[in-house]
Amino acid sequence: MNAAPTPSTEFSEPDYAARMTRAAREAIEAGLAGLLITPGPDLVWLCGYRPAAATERLTLLVLSPGAEPRLLVPALERPAAEAAPAAGAVRVSDWSDGQDPYAAATGLLLPNGRYGVSDTTWALHLLGLQEALPLTAYRPLTVVLPLLRAVKDEHEVARLAVAGAAADAAYEEILSVRFTGRREIDVATDLARLLREHGHSQVDFTVVASGPHSADPHHGAGDRVIEHGDTVVLAFGGLRDGYASETARTVHVGEPTEEERTVHDLVRTAQQAAFEAVAPGVSCQDVAQRARTVVADAGYGTYFTHRTGHGVGIATHEPPYLVEGEETALVPGMCFAVEPGVYLPGRFGVRIEDVVTCTADGVRRLSATDQAMAIVE
Amino acid sequence: MNAAPTPSTEFSEPDYAARMTRAAREAIEAGLAGLLITPGPDLVWLCGYRPAAATERLTLLVLSPGAEPRLLVPALERPAAEAAPAAGAVRVSDWSDGQDPYAAATGLLLPNGRYGVSDTTWALHLLGLQEALPLTAYRPLTVVLPLLRAVKDEHEVARLAVAGAAADAAYEEILSVRFTGRREIDVATDLARLLREHGHSQVDFTVVASGPHSADPHHGAGDRVIEHGDTVVLAFGGLRDGYASETARTVHVGEPTEEERTVHDLVRTAQQAAFEAVAPGVSCQDVAQRARTVVADAGYGTYFTHRTGHGVGIATHEPPYLVEGEETALVPGMCFAVEPGVYLPGRFGVRIEDVVTCTADGVRRLSATDQAMAIVE
Repeated sequence: MNAAPTPSTEFSEPDYAARMTRAAREAIEAGLAGLLITPGPDLVWLCGYRPAAATERLTLLVLSPGAEPRLLVPALERPAAEAAPAAGAVRVSDWSDGQDPYAAATGLLLPNGRYGVSDTTWALHLLGLQEALPLTAYRPLTVVLPLLRAVKDEHEVARLAVAGAAADAAYEEILSVRFTGRREIDVATDLARLLREHGHSQVDFTVVASGPHSADPHHGAGDRVIEHGDTVVLAFGGLRDGYASETARTVHVGEPTEEERTVHDLVRTAQQAAFEAVAPGVSCQDVAQRARTVVADAGYGTYFTHRTGHGVGIATHEPPYLVEGEETALVPGMCFAVEPGVYLPGRFGVRIEDVVTCTADGVRRLSATDQAMAIVE
Repeated sequence: MNAAPTPSTEFSEPDYAARMTRAAREAIEAGLAGLLITPGPDLVWLCGYRPAAATERLTLLVLSPGAEPRLLVPALERPAAEAAPAAGAVRVSDWSDGQDPYAAATGLLLPNGRYGVSDTTWALHLLGLQEALPLTAYRPLTVVLPLLRAVKDEHEVARLAVAGAAADAAYEEILSVRFTGRREIDVATDLARLLREHGHSQVDFTVVASGPHSADPHHGAGDRVIEHGDTVVLAFGGLRDGYASETARTVHVGEPTEEERTVHDLVRTAQQAAFEAVAPGVSCQDVAQRARTVVADAGYGTYFTHRTGHGVGIATHEPPYLVEGEETALVPGMCFAVEPGVYLPGRFGVRIEDVVTCTADGVRRLSATDQAMAIVE
């Protein structure tokens, strides 16, 4: 199997410049003096810069409405920063080992401003800024601008669809590998290989939760040997061309019991109900509630122990969150995983998950393999 | 080549309980009400718990002097938390999707306490705690307790030595692969494979910086085809049995020029000078300065653009930092990378790095291959 072709459209400097301009404009509208962005998904999305790692050395993008974007970097990372696709639209400055990076940052911020800061910014850096600028206020970016990255443009939706199709192809192929007598971790290794063969540059997770492990929604993959009669939750995803895939299907080794089939049908019905509820203007909690109601009405409510879903983009977990209490209304371009599950402790569990996108007239699946319970060997 | 054997000693609940007790005691001595630990190296070191990922869902270990350690986790991650090696020494509580995790955390903290918080804690979580407990103060853990993880016990030093020996073995073997005519990324792939063959469970970086790229201290590995006459910086490391390796050597494809040899000798002399300066009671900046003085005296001071080193343990970058201004005195058991470099922009660069440990009577290398400039093909 060869890697699927790389998409032809790379994001370029004007794309990033437009994103930074929009972010600064939305910051004003949210009553902010600007945005403070550190290494991670926000920085990648806004200027295409991905340092080798988020570290104890401060890297900080400052977006202030009406001013040129400023990027403060460790001196030895300056060449990498200046090679970023958006570098021409950003004014780069640096600090050297032994200097105080927070003092260097103060010149880029209003001393009494209110800033949105990347959720993943290290406490070390936030506390350094708070100490250097004690009158400046900070708010988590996803609290003050929850929709900044949540509404995808058509190019981003296309990439998510490509990633979803690749994950679907991996699922189709994993059905023909042998399950019985092999360890979960062996099947997980197969899944990772298939994702890479289908063009993923990064594999984020490959859950193979068999038998009683399937009842633990956060089980990964371990040394348990899969047996005939097991329910197996397969949940996997990663990055392809910078955008995330994420899907889950629950398969069975040999014929399922009547109860296993009943629970599987229930989760499938719940997932479909949530999917059909997606439309512009509908709230996140309403979509979540649709799935939960189906499960609760069947008497399994206490076994659906997690939220119904979460946004997916260049990160696998981002707003919007499909959870009770989340009143955000859906907007065309939002992309999120819908993943109800039922987990019967010590016995078995079922999860079914697809990434979907809200469209102008409803909803479309970005991962879409057959949801019927596949029988594997 | 088979994987090297797994070491026989796993850290157990008493090991972790002792670390948590010591951490709480050091917190008192530092004038703190306790420590707030989130997923990452601190949490692994203190209780052996490594959630699948650090996420927007709060996981928080609270260590308060004289009180039982408390671990707050998302409900669906509770089974994983309770499977952690230190679980028996920790009281676990949980919060469910839709609840406010910061409200759940307030019951575990003093409302007006001063806490040390993991450097890598997400701003999202720190700001959530600051809002829920506005009179509580927070300080970065490595600022208030810089030596908490920095001083390793004999079992930890032994693991770092095993990781270092594995990296050394990978270096010995990479010298016989072909460099000329292959891309940097191909040699980097070889290095990653060798690290895994020598027992690494995780490869963190494999720098192959050839020709002019060797003059960029943060170059990774790219598509450049390595040519006869290139200087090549090889810098690599990862985790073996949970502890980090990190080493760098600079090799040459064919015979070097006189200047290349001169600069290589200079960096080697600087690394040896810093190494020999290591002893209990000597300050970090004094060690750093020893290397810098050697380079500066030879007229290359402006081309040594980064600090001299950093601590290594279960993370590849942690205190102590060998940098001017860092007055911390070395203590037996500290382990750190010593890595001077000289980078001549657009031409070539040299870096030589080993992990060393401060001992009661001086210093010992934990990675130790021949530092002479190897000639490769």
